[in-house]
Amino acid sequence: MGLTQQPHPFDPLVGSEISAAVEVVKRTRPGQQLYFNAVSLHEPRKAEMLRWLEHPSDDRRPARVADVVVILPTGEVFDGLVDLKTKKVVKWEKLDGLQPIITPEELNQVEAVMRKDPKVIEQCEISGIPKEDMHKVYCDPWTIGYDERFGNSARLQQALMYYRPDPDTFQYQYPLDFCPIYDGAKKAIIHIDVPKVRRPLSKQKAIDYIPRAIEAAGGYRKDIKPINITQPEGVSFTMNGRVLSWQNWKFHIGFNYKEGIVLNHITFNDKGIERPIFYRLSLAEMVVPYGNPEHPHQRKHAFDLGEYGAGYMANSLALGCDCKGVIHYLDADFACRDGSVRTIKNAVCIHEEDNGILFKHTDFRDDSVTVTRARKLIVQQIFTAANYEYACQWVFHQDGTIQPEIKLTGILNTYALNPGEDAGPWGTEVYPQVNAHNHQHLFCLRVNPMIDGTNNTVNMVDTVPSDAPVGSPENFYGNAFYAKKTKLRTSGEAKTDYNGATSRTWEMVNESKIHPYSKKPASYKLVSREVPGLLPKEGSLVWKRAGFARHAVHVTPYRDDELWPAGRHVPQTSGEPSQGLPQWMANSNESTENTDIVLWHTFGVTHIPSPEDFPIMPVEPMTLLLRPRNFFTNNPCMDVPPSYSITPSQVAAQKGALDQSDKVSQLAFGGNSCCAAGNASARL
Amino acid sequence: MGLTQQPHPFDPLVGSEISAAVEVVKRTRPGQQLYFNAVSLHEPRKAEMLRWLEHPSDDRRPARVADVVVILPTGEVFDGLVDLKTKKVVKWEKLDGLQPIITPEELNQVEAVMRKDPKVIEQCEISGIPKEDMHKVYCDPWTIGYDERFGNSARLQQALMYYRPDPDTFQYQYPLDFCPIYDGAKKAIIHIDVPKVRRPLSKQKAIDYIPRAIEAAGGYRKDIKPINITQPEGVSFTMNGRVLSWQNWKFHIGFNYKEGIVLNHITFNDKGIERPIFYRLSLAEMVVPYGNPEHPHQRKHAFDLGEYGAGYMANSLALGCDCKGVIHYLDADFACRDGSVRTIKNAVCIHEEDNGILFKHTDFRDDSVTVTRARKLIVQQIFTAANYEYACQWVFHQDGTIQPEIKLTGILNTYALNPGEDAGPWGTEVYPQVNAHNHQHLFCLRVNPMIDGTNNTVNMVDTVPSDAPVGSPENFYGNAFYAKKTKLRTSGEAKTDYNGATSRTWEMVNESKIHPYSKKPASYKLVSREVPGLLPKEGSLVWKRAGFARHAVHVTPYRDDELWPAGRHVPQTSGEPSQGLPQWMANSNESTENTDIVLWHTFGVTHIPSPEDFPIMPVEPMTLLLRPRNFFTNNPCMDVPPSYSITPSQVAAQKGALDQSDKVSQLAFGGNSCCAAGNASARL
Repeated sequence: MGLTQQPHPFDPLVGSEISAAVEVVKRTRPGQQLYFNAVSLHEPRKAEMLRWLEHPSDDRRPARVADVVVILPTGEVFDGLVDLKTKKVVKWEKLDGLQPIITPEELNQVEAVMRKDPKVIEQCEISGIPKEDMHKVYCDPWTIGYDERFGNSARLQQALMYYRPDPDTFQYQYPLDFCPIYDGAKKAIIHIDVPKVRRPLSKQKAIDYIPRAIEAAGGYRKDIKPINITQPEGVSFTMNGRVLSWQNWKFHIGFNYKEGIVLNHITFNDKGIERPIFYRLSLAEMVVPYGNPEHPHQRKHAFDLGEYGAGYMANSLALGCDCKGVIHYLDADFACRDGSVRTIKNAVCIHEEDNGILFKHTDFRDDSVTVTRARKLIVQQIFTAANYEYACQWVFHQDGTIQPEIKLTGILNTYALNPGEDAGPWGTEVYPQVNAHNHQHLFCLRVNPMIDGTNNTVNMVDTVPSDAPVGSPENFYGNAFYAKKTKLRTSGEAKTDYNGATSRTWEMVNESKIHPYSKKPASYKLVSREVPGLLPKEGSLVWKRAGFARHAVHVTPYRDDELWPAGRHVPQTSGEPSQGLPQWMANSNESTENTDIVLWHTFGVTHIPSPEDFPIMPVEPMTLLLRPRNFFTNNPCMDVPPSYSITPSQVAAQKGALDQSDKVSQLAFGGNSCCAAGNASARL
Repeated sequence: MGLTQQPHPFDPLVGSEISAAVEVVKRTRPGQQLYFNAVSLHEPRKAEMLRWLEHPSDDRRPARVADVVVILPTGEVFDGLVDLKTKKVVKWEKLDGLQPIITPEELNQVEAVMRKDPKVIEQCEISGIPKEDMHKVYCDPWTIGYDERFGNSARLQQALMYYRPDPDTFQYQYPLDFCPIYDGAKKAIIHIDVPKVRRPLSKQKAIDYIPRAIEAAGGYRKDIKPINITQPEGVSFTMNGRVLSWQNWKFHIGFNYKEGIVLNHITFNDKGIERPIFYRLSLAEMVVPYGNPEHPHQRKHAFDLGEYGAGYMANSLALGCDCKGVIHYLDADFACRDGSVRTIKNAVCIHEEDNGILFKHTDFRDDSVTVTRARKLIVQQIFTAANYEYACQWVFHQDGTIQPEIKLTGILNTYALNPGEDAGPWGTEVYPQVNAHNHQHLFCLRVNPMIDGTNNTVNMVDTVPSDAPVGSPENFYGNAFYAKKTKLRTSGEAKTDYNGATSRTWEMVNESKIHPYSKKPASYKLVSREVPGLLPKEGSLVWKRAGFARHAVHVTPYRDDELWPAGRHVPQTSGEPSQGLPQWMANSNESTENTDIVLWHTFGVTHIPSPEDFPIMPVEPMTLLLRPRNFFTNNPCMDVPPSYSITPSQVAAQKGALDQSDKVSQLAFGGNSCCAAGNASARL
């Protein structure tokens, strides 16, 4: 983005804008030390933005405003807004009892302090680590989550402790059993949680997945031949700034420190008309509760987005490693603690993949056939949350489907186990003396639908048998079934859970846009099957803090700035009262019918670890679909060129087939491929 | 397979063996007209086969036997077995009240007869089609399913009627409202079901997906650039006959007329030891019940495997269309009605695909990272069941996971609708005057596990909160949860349904093979989330005929020949008594514990049609996983070479990284890719 070109109102702040905002804040507080926690786009007010989207050439662009969070050396926290045009602080508010996100810089402060703390050294010695080996002691710093002994006035992290025999050894096989608490303002360890039952450092042989270890164990397998993916004519998408166009889709790719990728104003060009579908789509929060009830493991329930940030923790992606083929990257600029700017190169990758068959039909009479291959577009980021990695993909399909897909990988969070000790039922011994606790990964998908306009409604849809009994005139043979729709009229009614027995889905509809054929309203349907529900009990610490996870679906009327469902500032919230979504639903009678709404969907997996997940976990994918139903007049991708098409009259004439099959594909073991589509099987 | 080489005992019969079996049968019935319904491998008795698998060089090969089904012109049906070595008929049994599978030849007989039938011509005229246009009248012949008026002594098909204005027009937009019944022995229409409310031929404008229609509607989109997939060094798998070896996996690929692909003796080479996992794995049956209760739509509940055959209906696959990359194909030989042999070329395709990231972890301290890409192997077939197509993929992963994946495409089954008539609630008007009825696609996965041996047990696993209340000493913070296991000790206990609330899974375990670390038994876990359950009610016609679909999981003790859960001969079964699985579970106290067992899993989708599915349906995928848990000592794919790996000490030294990243990948819009993995993000 050149300085001369105006940014799109949805664009993240670029480095120069971050610097400008920092300068404005510093000017108002001369001489004062300021820790910049976040300097991010204050998203345009929706009313203004909708007006501008209607008339983008209009001069009245939404104001470009920086959302600033600042911490003083005293620990005081301020939320501010800086107008980047007027160079003025337009809001400055001191927070009370709230701790903003823990930045990577803050995480990185803990280990050095921990290593020098005498009480930590003492505990290491008790664990069997001599004090001259403190450089071999590591910690994964997590926000303390919430600990009632410490409240939320001090800015605290808990240090999950590990040992590495040498710097390259994989640490998660050598967990230590105690947990120091770090105070960010004091830059000191203020407490150590020491368990009643001690579990000294394991003396087990090291396991590892790094090349040195694999070579020592017999070396890498040699039987994988390369697969090359090339696009000699380039990619099929175009970028205008951060607005992507591909196969009738058009949307803006934003990025912020909390959510990472944010997709805005997603439209589909339906025969010349750009129909809006979603105003904003993102993963807005997540929580990873661990299931071991022993103190202090209840504190392990990371809100990875709200407490650390999918943007702040984004990987810099590498060509041919994280993504294969022809790739476009987007960088991300963030403020550092001192107000300078850091850039994560390649924070987002965009590429296409062949996706198998898009549709196919053969006429059994004569083998006349049309077969068309599918293409998909993937907008991806990967973030590292201490031990775990999350690869978040937004997959766009030619048929109008959007498929968020998350691939879990990385390393299990582990805890020490004594020889002979039973890890069950709250965990699994995945390696000798390594206890991986049961946990869930629960994600909150935030959907602000705009199905042909901003007035939308959510229906819950259950497929159920007819009420009429077998043998009755209405259902004589007993086979009647249908889709039962329940309109979710208020945010109170909209608190709904998954029901596997009825294949429950939820549809976001525009009740004023009735399909000419089906007479049903235009909709996008949420099809999500990995919806385990929050296993920590009602009234538990996690239940109180992660209000969004209490139900599979919540719906609220849209309001600016209601973005992050565990609250704007998540670390050290007690859950009393619950922040975020529960607050926004305080009035459960508020209408969610035929108005601008937000659907919050919590999905994920329950992970009972097993040794196969260790020492590094093969990807576990989870996915869901946002599918157009009664939205398009008919199949919206019939104009994707077929690979092969022959009609009955062409079969009869033995000529006229449209053969656009891929001429690059080959037979594995030579010989003649023999079969053009459609004229190959032995006819009867 | 050359004639000189002995076939593998699991190999399907090749053409010469089919011919030999046919000759033997003909010799025993000289001069008699015989219709060969099926000539297929009689699968080796398991006890013999296990002995041979232990000692494949042993001379005592399991006997090579043909399973023969023959129909006489009188309509009599015989099940026979022919020993191919001794050239003798070793079993010949007349069936009573059973109709074997409807062959493609039989399906193809109906249309010509129907067109000439005076009563059909009369009904066409009533519908508005003049008799000179009878060549424009088509039918999709289905077995009658079961109709109590006709029973099962005559061999019947129902003709679902359509009209095509010209031979290339897509017929499913012009359904006719009446339904002739065809008698295969008489080669005649014996009855016509005519509805009370008549729905004459639609006069709506034609819609279509063939090139002529797309060109007329504005042409194909031009913005898809090619993606080429090449394997310059060839594929990574090898074939020894039909035994495939790939990435530690080894298995035999069979194929029969009913199930299509059958995978046998699936093993995984675990550090030099070939560990058996599954003795046999297949899709063994399916049922597609439609939800409209009006007569005669209750007859629409196709058992596509048992009634028509995924093998018999297999597509001949085409390079660069159905499969892309470097492909190996297998053909399928079947007997024709007259005993001659037909070959479906390329009935099975086998290829590899890049599968994104296999695993990745970055150390947040220094961006040291290992990232490894995944490969998957796909064994695929596609079959056409009248209007629908099913692409069935068996996907093998390097981490030991097997992923059956089915892609639904093709065309909706449709029925006529009058102008202004409401299709709801049992269907959707997907196009003017086209009613697509609600339906389900329910598949039955048959798994004969052999987890480290034939003595296996199934546990049902539910993830649940601790019983201890919040605030209690055992669960003070309320976060305790665990995997509750219920052993399914008998076939009666094993009738279990899906439970979305507990993320229910089922694990097949070998209780005598305890993991050295976790102390849990070696297992493969069935992770399946698309499990809608049978919507036709208990006692309904479908419920009676499709006993396998009553529960998500059934378990039976293994017995030879208990292969197809709706019965060996499915057409025209009344469900009184229920064939197949319900018979095999007659003794519900039979032990399924620590013995040779078969797990039957019914999964699928409930499809409420929408206009987007018309005129041709973009692929709707469904999938499930068979995952190793406590089976491998640890992650079994750590020896897959990484794309990039750098350790902390290499980061510190700024040298030593292992860079095997794909050098073929490129940037979309030029410029410098800038970032080698692991040293790219702006460090703090």
